[in-house]
Amino acid sequence: MNKPLKYAVFGSGSWATAIVKMLSENLEEVGWYMRSVYTKEHLLKENHNPSYLSSVEFKIEQLKLSNDINEIAEYADVLIFAVPSAFMFTELEKLTVDVSQKIIVSAVKGIIPESGLLVGEHFHDIYNIPFENIAVIAGPCHAEEVALERLSYLTISCADAEKASEIADKLSSDYIKTKISDDIIGTEYAVMLKNIYAIAAGIAHGLGYGDNFQSVLMSNAIREMKRFIKKMHKMKRNINDSAYLGDLLVTGYSVFSRNRMFGNMIGKGYTVKSAQMEMNMVAEGYYAAKSAHLLNEEHQAKTPIIDAVYAVLYEGKDAKKVFKKLTDKLD
Amino acid sequence: MNKPLKYAVFGSGSWATAIVKMLSENLEEVGWYMRSVYTKEHLLKENHNPSYLSSVEFKIEQLKLSNDINEIAEYADVLIFAVPSAFMFTELEKLTVDVSQKIIVSAVKGIIPESGLLVGEHFHDIYNIPFENIAVIAGPCHAEEVALERLSYLTISCADAEKASEIADKLSSDYIKTKISDDIIGTEYAVMLKNIYAIAAGIAHGLGYGDNFQSVLMSNAIREMKRFIKKMHKMKRNINDSAYLGDLLVTGYSVFSRNRMFGNMIGKGYTVKSAQMEMNMVAEGYYAAKSAHLLNEEHQAKTPIIDAVYAVLYEGKDAKKVFKKLTDKLD
Repeated sequence: MNKPLKYAVFGSGSWATAIVKMLSENLEEVGWYMRSVYTKEHLLKENHNPSYLSSVEFKIEQLKLSNDINEIAEYADVLIFAVPSAFMFTELEKLTVDVSQKIIVSAVKGIIPESGLLVGEHFHDIYNIPFENIAVIAGPCHAEEVALERLSYLTISCADAEKASEIADKLSSDYIKTKISDDIIGTEYAVMLKNIYAIAAGIAHGLGYGDNFQSVLMSNAIREMKRFIKKMHKMKRNINDSAYLGDLLVTGYSVFSRNRMFGNMIGKGYTVKSAQMEMNMVAEGYYAAKSAHLLNEEHQAKTPIIDAVYAVLYEGKDAKKVFKKLTDKLD
Repeated sequence: MNKPLKYAVFGSGSWATAIVKMLSENLEEVGWYMRSVYTKEHLLKENHNPSYLSSVEFKIEQLKLSNDINEIAEYADVLIFAVPSAFMFTELEKLTVDVSQKIIVSAVKGIIPESGLLVGEHFHDIYNIPFENIAVIAGPCHAEEVALERLSYLTISCADAEKASEIADKLSSDYIKTKISDDIIGTEYAVMLKNIYAIAAGIAHGLGYGDNFQSVLMSNAIREMKRFIKKMHKMKRNINDSAYLGDLLVTGYSVFSRNRMFGNMIGKGYTVKSAQMEMNMVAEGYYAAKSAHLLNEEHQAKTPIIDAVYAVLYEGKDAKKVFKKLTDKLD
């Protein structure tokens, strides 16, 4: 890695925008692919993303913007994907350049619904990327606080520690501290599972459960996450590290989390469909609940919280009854 | 335990009042000692505590009220202490009846400053109570939510599982679920330490750190708590159980926690003295920080968060600088 690596970010949501900001602190140029022509034009004219973190002013000469995914994929050595998992498959279908020699970084908070695969696995299986060239960025990190330059911690996971360090280095700044990990699979699952738990927290809140219950729910959630991930990929990990517990907490306690909001509406009596329509989007945890349920059919970890969320979202079960039963399974 | 045991609660704060309420769901009579004559008279006339959880209506014929600690200690078989740790010593000085055959339950959230002992240890050392007759009630549980009958979970720790179950049974109801544990020492330390971490959370908030940092702080706090307790009393425990992690979270995330409020004022620039005067009380975590610091001088667990809080509260160090350094020690 003697020649400086070129970095690019794919996506234009708040997390993508935050990552471009972080990289801009360290790199002369950052590639940035976004689907929307309007967003690109707005960035060029106004120096900020019109829809997300619009308070963040970019130096436009630092950005290599494009609406062509292949142009940016061609340009960069390190490809950071921060597209909602529901759009990943469609975006990747456009990819025609050879990415087999690239470093692929997932900042996607979920599983790709079409393949049922983690983003890392997806790139490994479909694009033959070796695992040592695949990394994951995990929080705990609300993009909004990156915009405000509030101190945040990231964990960069990669089987190849040198690559993890290289990426971590480019994301670090006065307000971003990074650590590296080799638990790429565990980190990706944690990122996915926390959204299910945030939905559970929202449902509980909507049903009128209070702070005492929320803390019990989170305490059970981290134990459940540990059991689930252990079944998927057994290795030595401290589930209380920031990338697992920290990320769970920042999402599960956030009143701004879209997953928690979605759950809250369900708890208050909205149907799944109407909550989704009202929010004008599908929360990541909605897909995650299904993926986790399917994965667990094989592995059979004890996951009462995931089961409860799945029953409410996919089996039309009554949230109040399901959560009443759930309370007997927690301790 | 064939003859039904008589229970009494000592103290008249919100936690004491909540415990009396829980017991009232199951017992024909509950003894209740309080120092204040006014509080007792008010309870007799108005059926509620004038100062804490005043929405809770008691059936006064169920209560055996007294301002005489010895009368109530004499009356009951199970003595539940829910007095602020700072007043425990003074209260216990009044105790002249023989309590050596009683079951002593600590619902005190801290260490007794005068002896530097956990409440359980204090009763063991001073009153010769065998450890199998000492129990601890741990949350996560805001008293205010008990008043609202919102579902809450308690852990009752006692070396004697039968006694733990007996007490748990009397506290259980539609809105209180209980579990038992044999980790009395670990539970007492957890209850104490969480208040220090709540102060840390408050200081961080006061200094302008955000939710991302808060989640990293809590993730580090639970790891630190595990190290600390392990040095004090090594045994198999899951630090993510509700009594440890849950209790940490309900306190560390509560904007109503007096410890967090106290920390917040310090973070915003109040001196320790002026924050205490403004709050008209001393937060439990203030004493806990000193006790934990002293205990740890011997045991040398790695406790950067406790160290930081101690430095701010007792060494007159600048909170901003101390926390800046602390951020480098967290991950």
